[in-house]
Amino acid sequence: MIRVTVWHEETEPGREKDFPNFPYYPETMQAKVDAVYPGGMGKTIATFLKDTDIETRVSYLSDPEQGLSEEVLENTDVLVWWGHSRHRLVEDSIVRRVCDRILGGMGAIFLHSAHESKPFRSLMGTSGGLSWREDDDREDMWAINPLHPIAEGAAHIVLEEEETYAEPFDIPTPDELVYISAYEGGEVHRSGCVWNRGRGKIFYFSPGHETYPNLHNPQVQRVIKNAVHYVKPMDTVLEGLKSVKIQKREM
Amino acid sequence: MIRVTVWHEETEPGREKDFPNFPYYPETMQAKVDAVYPGGMGKTIATFLKDTDIETRVSYLSDPEQGLSEEVLENTDVLVWWGHSRHRLVEDSIVRRVCDRILGGMGAIFLHSAHESKPFRSLMGTSGGLSWREDDDREDMWAINPLHPIAEGAAHIVLEEEETYAEPFDIPTPDELVYISAYEGGEVHRSGCVWNRGRGKIFYFSPGHETYPNLHNPQVQRVIKNAVHYVKPMDTVLEGLKSVKIQKREM
Amino acid sequence: MIRVTVWHEETEPGREKDFPNFPYYPETMQAKVDAVYPGGMGKTIATFLKDTDIETRVSYLSDPEQGLSEEVLENTDVLVWWGHSRHRLVEDSIVRRVCDRILGGMGAIFLHSAHESKPFRSLMGTSGGLSWREDDDREDMWAINPLHPIAEGAAHIVLEEEETYAEPFDIPTPDELVYISAYEGGEVHRSGCVWNRGRGKIFYFSPGHETYPNLHNPQVQRVIKNAVHYVKPMDTVLEGLKSVKIQKREM
Amino acid sequence: MIRVTVWHEETEPGREKDFPNFPYYPETMQAKVDAVYPGGMGKTIATFLKDTDIETRVSYLSDPEQGLSEEVLENTDVLVWWGHSRHRLVEDSIVRRVCDRILGGMGAIFLHSAHESKPFRSLMGTSGGLSWREDDDREDMWAINPLHPIAEGAAHIVLEEEETYAEPFDIPTPDELVYISAYEGGEVHRSGCVWNRGRGKIFYFSPGHETYPNLHNPQVQRVIKNAVHYVKPMDTVLEGLKSVKIQKREM
Repeated sequence: MIRVTVWHEETEPGREKDFPNFPYYPETMQAKVDAVYPGGMGKTIATFLKDTDIETRVSYLSDPEQGLSEEVLENTDVLVWWGHSRHRLVEDSIVRRVCDRILGGMGAIFLHSAHESKPFRSLMGTSGGLSWREDDDREDMWAINPLHPIAEGAAHIVLEEEETYAEPFDIPTPDELVYISAYEGGEVHRSGCVWNRGRGKIFYFSPGHETYPNLHNPQVQRVIKNAVHYVKPMDTVLEGLKSVKIQKREM
Repeated sequence: MIRVTVWHEETEPGREKDFPNFPYYPETMQAKVDAVYPGGMGKTIATFLKDTDIETRVSYLSDPEQGLSEEVLENTDVLVWWGHSRHRLVEDSIVRRVCDRILGGMGAIFLHSAHESKPFRSLMGTSGGLSWREDDDREDMWAINPLHPIAEGAAHIVLEEEETYAEPFDIPTPDELVYISAYEGGEVHRSGCVWNRGRGKIFYFSPGHETYPNLHNPQVQRVIKNAVHYVKPMDTVLEGLKSVKIQKREM
Repeated sequence: MIRVTVWHEETEPGREKDFPNFPYYPETMQAKVDAVYPGGMGKTIATFLKDTDIETRVSYLSDPEQGLSEEVLENTDVLVWWGHSRHRLVEDSIVRRVCDRILGGMGAIFLHSAHESKPFRSLMGTSGGLSWREDDDREDMWAINPLHPIAEGAAHIVLEEEETYAEPFDIPTPDELVYISAYEGGEVHRSGCVWNRGRGKIFYFSPGHETYPNLHNPQVQRVIKNAVHYVKPMDTVLEGLKSVKIQKREM
Repeated sequence: MIRVTVWHEETEPGREKDFPNFPYYPETMQAKVDAVYPGGMGKTIATFLKDTDIETRVSYLSDPEQGLSEEVLENTDVLVWWGHSRHRLVEDSIVRRVCDRILGGMGAIFLHSAHESKPFRSLMGTSGGLSWREDDDREDMWAINPLHPIAEGAAHIVLEEEETYAEPFDIPTPDELVYISAYEGGEVHRSGCVWNRGRGKIFYFSPGHETYPNLHNPQVQRVIKNAVHYVKPMDTVLEGLKSVKIQKREM
């Protein structure tokens, strides 16, 4: 059983009033998001990922320890991260905890604007910046190797509308480039990328803007589920973390 | 002075009648190509590459030893290869000679359909195949790292019409991915790629269909010229080939 | 069930007299090899690989179609190749057949001197050359990522004597570097490397000189068995080869 | 003219008494270091790097703003970093400043124990940890591509004694692997590595323990000087930083 935690910067549904000072999401925008993802985006993702071999939980920025306590992380094999406008609210000590757990072997999937989240930037060592446009266009996503395990069943994905994310994308060269996207406006984006960092595997995948229904797209869901299997820690990592000792100097 | 040889599968202009059995290029097509590239494509390329530090010659499939004699290669620092429909005519022994020279340090630039030429396939180890469409579309080429020396002055190139070349592109992961293209139809293509093979550097660049004027585009010309500088052998290669000995077993 | 074919340049045991003109292996040398690998090296490898989920057969250079008929290849998921001194005897048309099958998805493991075999060189695009010494030394093999699936159970392998293979090793940058070796004389070698080519996965692994018993080493055996699992075609390759069409131009 | 700043965690020579609380370096040890590098290691490096086209300055941890003020960084094209035991003293805000400048295009060379310095770890996204032994051994460094510009004149370097640094080395796969080392004890280490991060180039090079005279070795000096040329910002970076705009979202 793979234990997935979906972390989302949103407030736990129903508790919005307790966090009046969370930035972003003016009321009209929030209404729009609620219409597309009733119950919240976190719950949407957790629901479609759930399977005979995947159990899921949702963690919110509004939870104790911002939803990323030691206890949560110790019970997570794969962390799915969605953030867009509250990156700065995540505390540095919690970012360090998340990154250390990923370097130790936990899988991680960063969706959409998580390319600018603190953990992603910390793991990449770069800004994670990219070019973007507000005029949202049709996006064609292509698996450059349609037989990559992450692309199974999704060699070509068409999204009628998505936020335009484009090169230059300030990332280290991916260890595996899985998807490249073209937008109607002629832009391109390395939109599905795998990196190995420490003992962990990391997947970035661009779909998932909060006002478009792309997380309901069966192929997008398929890719994220494939990715859960791809980045999950190997048994050797889960069992063997203690047996392989890297001698650390005392500083 | 960098010595560039532009090799082209075309007949040396004026000698077409001597090679009545060269396949492809029905008369109507040939007329179209001649209108776009009077004097031939080879000469066009050699002319725009010529510079204070670059001297050029053109070599034709119709030349002795198919334009690729030992003498030609020994006097070539960078080989630019254009081929589309006569790949099969190039003799295997000559392909071997070209590849050995590249592995020894000669730079190589493969344009457009040269992704299916024998030397390119031999150096890659793969088929070089890609998806393509005859309906030619607008192509947007983007340098994913606009500061790569090959992309200098050409961060974004717009070609109003070009043959649509698309993923999956059957190549080894490039050592450096320089350009990605989007086509009007939504396709994407890794259209500018660098590989190191042996002591040689290889650049593939997709523009240059024979019926479109894209080799007259100043940015396309700029990229090819930048690439000549990028793939040219280092002085250490030119001088040092003898001093670094790789002991070969006798077979 | 994974179907493994072990190909070896040796004569099928018992039939040596039928091939009096096979080069190499003077009688004294052959006696030495027979003492270390009674029944032949091919059989040794096939025997230790055999498992509940792996079935094996041995194919010899002395077999019809040099042991690599269409029928053999169609019934092979992973090909293990051992060759040292008869590389040149393998016919080019058969090399092409083997490479095409690998590009189509068959896994391949090249052992020891197979770095200079025709299929390996053809898939790499380079000479495959390396530095070597006849004074055979102790070799320490290190998994640079001890949690790589190929290195499971074999983070550090000590071989008391092995032929010294050293850098510079004329290969394209591996997609995954798994093992680096040090020899007593101070040499280093990238001794375990993975490449993706077409739909196939390729693993090179340096141990296995014919006069040393290293193919009896349990860790060496473990790595080769791990690699069989790692390079075997994904189900999507086995099933899906027809569904993903790469449109080929007619040439 | 390339402007190099050599940063060293040591106290500016002569001012040791002003920093009685700097950890490490008991008096006997310091005496040993002084004997090997009279005037300090920083000055040693700055002196051998100085050339007709390289000007150098030394910056000390004991300087104002820890030797890494905005003014220093703005006048630095390539930063050489030596640190071993005072990594923790470097303030996080200064680390951020250094990393941002590197991502913006400044070249960086990290020597010896700088693999655990804060800027290196921040740029890599990993721990930078490695295995090590105190029994210092002979080290053989090999350029896996002896024609790499960084390895010019130093295909094989022999260091009679050096601290033993070994795999597993917790780094992202280098964009270019330049040197691999073997130690007398049989260990291996990826001891010369290049990464691209943002617009900057980074080189890690393992020699330079404070009690061994390896920074006096002409080949080691050659490599570091070659590396200065290799990682220095391209003119397009220096001039063009403003012309290529990456549109940043407001957070």
